[in-house]
Amino acid sequence: MPKELVQILIRAANVRIERIVSHGHASPADFWYDQAQHEWVIVLKGTARLQFEDGVVEMKVGDFINIPSFRKHRVDWTTPDEPTVWLGVRYGEVTATRKDSTAT
Amino acid sequence: MPKELVQILIRAANVRIERIVSHGHASPADFWYDQAQHEWVIVLKGTARLQFEDGVVEMKVGDFINIPSFRKHRVDWTTPDEPTVWLGVRYGEVTATRKDSTAT
Repeated sequence: MPKELVQILIRAANVRIERIVSHGHASPADFWYDQAQHEWVIVLKGTARLQFEDGVVEMKVGDFINIPSFRKHRVDWTTPDEPTVWLGVRYGEVTATRKDSTAT
Repeated sequence: MPKELVQILIRAANVRIERIVSHGHASPADFWYDQAQHEWVIVLKGTARLQFEDGVVEMKVGDFINIPSFRKHRVDWTTPDEPTVWLGVRYGEVTATRKDSTAT
């Protein structure tokens, strides 16, 4: 399975705009994105399923979602029939640190 | 002619993500946007023509353009056949001031 193609369109202070092309790509089963920045994503082409710790979200063309910083997520599935094209905007402090409500 | 519909999707420090729907809307003939923030826009539906001081740019679905701060621009035309849907990301310092190379 080929890796996702990520094209960085804009890179500015605390903002990054990316175009991401997935072709049947999914995150490894036990892999979770866990990012210091917020990420707003919209599907430009194709269909996909994002997984969060509390469930999955189906996304088709035009659907968008805001993923707050440190909300764990993974790409559960993208359609194998055609490339899925995402636009993503990462924003907020790159150096933010997790605010855990519990400590061990 | 109805005004453009602007839906603010994300408003964060120095970043604003907007969904803009134009239906045959164009800027008034002598009106120019002249913004302190940079603006990156992509056409999600429809077709449009942006005008800059040095020419026009035709835009169709999937086309995007970065408009640096204080680059004057206006919406010259959007197709009357269907709504034109834009996604815009404003970013950079809201309080930036123009750096004029000439003074009068």
